Amino acid sequence: MENERYLRGLEKLKEIDGHAGENVIESLRDIAPDFARLLIEFPFGDIYSRPGLDLKSREIAVVAALTALGNAAPQLKVHIHGALNVGCTQQEIIEVIMQMAVYAGFPCALNGLFAAKEVFAQRK
Amino acid sequence: MENERYLRGLEKLKEIDGHAGENVIESLRDIAPDFARLLIEFPFGDIYSRPGLDLKSREIAVVAALTALGNAAPQLKVHIHGALNVGCTQQEIIEVIMQMAVYAGFPCALNGLFAAKEVFAQRK
Amino acid sequence: MENERYLRGLEKLKEIDGHAGENVIESLRDIAPDFARLLIEFPFGDIYSRPGLDLKSREIAVVAALTALGNAAPQLKVHIHGALNVGCTQQEIIEVIMQMAVYAGFPCALNGLFAAKEVFAQRK
Amino acid sequence: MENERYLRGLEKLKEIDGHAGENVIESLRDIAPDFARLLIEFPFGDIYSRPGLDLKSREIAVVAALTALGNAAPQLKVHIHGALNVGCTQQEIIEVIMQMAVYAGFPCALNGLFAAKEVFAQRK
Amino acid sequence: MENERYLRGLEKLKEIDGHAGENVIESLRDIAPDFARLLIEFPFGDIYSRPGLDLKSREIAVVAALTALGNAAPQLKVHIHGALNVGCTQQEIIEVIMQMAVYAGFPCALNGLFAAKEVFAQRK
Amino acid sequence: MENERYLRGLEKLKEIDGHAGENVIESLRDIAPDFARLLIEFPFGDIYSRPGLDLKSREIAVVAALTALGNAAPQLKVHIHGALNVGCTQQEIIEVIMQMAVYAGFPCALNGLFAAKEVFAQRK
Repeated sequence: MENERYLRGLEKLKEIDGHAGENVIESLRDIAPDFARLLIEFPFGDIYSRPGLDLKSREIAVVAALTALGNAAPQLKVHIHGALNVGCTQQEIIEVIMQMAVYAGFPCALNGLFAAKEVFAQRK
Repeated sequence: MENERYLRGLEKLKEIDGHAGENVIESLRDIAPDFARLLIEFPFGDIYSRPGLDLKSREIAVVAALTALGNAAPQLKVHIHGALNVGCTQQEIIEVIMQMAVYAGFPCALNGLFAAKEVFAQRK
Repeated sequence: MENERYLRGLEKLKEIDGHAGENVIESLRDIAPDFARLLIEFPFGDIYSRPGLDLKSREIAVVAALTALGNAAPQLKVHIHGALNVGCTQQEIIEVIMQMAVYAGFPCALNGLFAAKEVFAQRK
Repeated sequence: MENERYLRGLEKLKEIDGHAGENVIESLRDIAPDFARLLIEFPFGDIYSRPGLDLKSREIAVVAALTALGNAAPQLKVHIHGALNVGCTQQEIIEVIMQMAVYAGFPCALNGLFAAKEVFAQRK
Repeated sequence: MENERYLRGLEKLKEIDGHAGENVIESLRDIAPDFARLLIEFPFGDIYSRPGLDLKSREIAVVAALTALGNAAPQLKVHIHGALNVGCTQQEIIEVIMQMAVYAGFPCALNGLFAAKEVFAQRK
Repeated sequence: MENERYLRGLEKLKEIDGHAGENVIESLRDIAPDFARLLIEFPFGDIYSRPGLDLKSREIAVVAALTALGNAAPQLKVHIHGALNVGCTQQEIIEVIMQMAVYAGFPCALNGLFAAKEVFAQRK
């Protein structure tokens, strides 16, 4: 059963984050391999796999939260990729980030927009 | 033109937040009436009125961000009402808040869930 | 196997948080029962059950983090109880909180001390 | 010399915070009396006593920072009192707090304005 | 009228941030040109243009807030330039940042000082 | 007496942070030499020198707090070194950082683990 949860998480991680997700897992191998497993099991196996909210809305929620927190630029970029992977348009992502100026201030929104600019350029 | 922006914001505020929005505006009257005007003009007249992202997604973004920041309980409650007003189900809101455990920790998610519990009870 | 993880988490939750932990679980029953299960499984079943760091050090880490974040007073109180339950002295807890003045500022440390004062009074 | 630093801090604390400062010191007596001493010595004896920035500007800086952090309402209120005590007008304080909408978002600014409203009412 | 607000904001932006402000606007051109317009209109056209608080005090407030938040280094540097542009001395800026050790901890103050060091060196 | 406090702090700083601590002090020399003195006196002379909590527990508290705040990477690295210097094992540090996923979210824990990876590599 635990194994099922891990496999479900791994599939979800690939669906959302593609290679970026695999890179994160890979980069944890030598320092904290158990954390790589927990990252697959809890966020992806337990949370993202739940019914009740579509993946596109889930990625909008993450992009909003990480833009507002403003202290996790690498993870914000991974999830801007993720949002695009599950069907958000570039314009929708820009709108979510701009809106964060209202709730977390202009600097967080600006830094979020620059992260998006970098991600969009990578995908061209 | 400025006037148009204010009126557009006021209408959007009513559409999303209903009485809760009016109460916020009212409570600012004696301390900072200009801030009430700016709150209508910028967040609602400029941001929420933009095309490119539907209101339901905008409210999901706000509920996510305010849950993750964890320092604005009154505004989180206003926007849980707002999310319900523009078509989110209770279950979708619960899912957004639960997901924040991954990005901002369990305490923020717990406090978000208790805020939702209070709002859902008020609307019964 | 999943069941084993849940039971391990439940036992750990009781060991650390006692009745306070059960109250949190209880308060989630009507709003987000799945979150109660996840709270037992991931933090307590997966993390607190790990070898490699004693429970007393784990509670010192939590009290430090929640004091520094400064936006989760109810959970800070639960974990000041938890720290006392697993063997920290009141003086050790006071020291951890005072030290946070250096890393998160005096207001966070002050609010942490007032939370500790409340918890210590409850346990008399 | 240490004694001189304590006395200098105590005088500065009284100049800025008046009774509110004394209440904070008093409330620490039974839980962490050493922290009360450190609070007088470092913030007030070391920092506020420095030349190079006038007290009014120092209070503007604190009101801005605590509004933006948004997680220390009691200390924000103490320093809104402090700002008024050292010569800021109510309008200047309102302007500082409103400006934080730009840097930390509207919810932080709103909660700061409601704190100011409470303080201004107390002083009437 | 809207146009007047934009022009007033643009002038204020130039007065405070000079070339740094123009660079931010420029860098938004391809990713979110509307956000560049909103950044001129709301922070600069609406807030900084208000009477009731002098520009020097406004920049002290921003430097304090961004140092304390600690998650917006590029914007902090822009506003250290801005503070110098509107009449703050280097010593006053150092004092504001040092004071943040009291309210947001030593790491935030240290990172603020290193930002100031970089800005002061650029202006030599 | 003040002098005694400075010397006590300097010794404690060397004991915990070794060369890294000296580098921080050195880097402040031209921008804010008084802040270097205050950094030795208050955190190290006043706080770390206190009895009532062992140094290993103090470093666990700091690593936890800085991982959770997520906005002070250079200071987190200094204190991962510090934790190792006063007797923490690499595994204990990894456990503290992993545990922060529960209280501040996975991105903060991930960025903490990558900081630890860098520090551990430097010490090989």
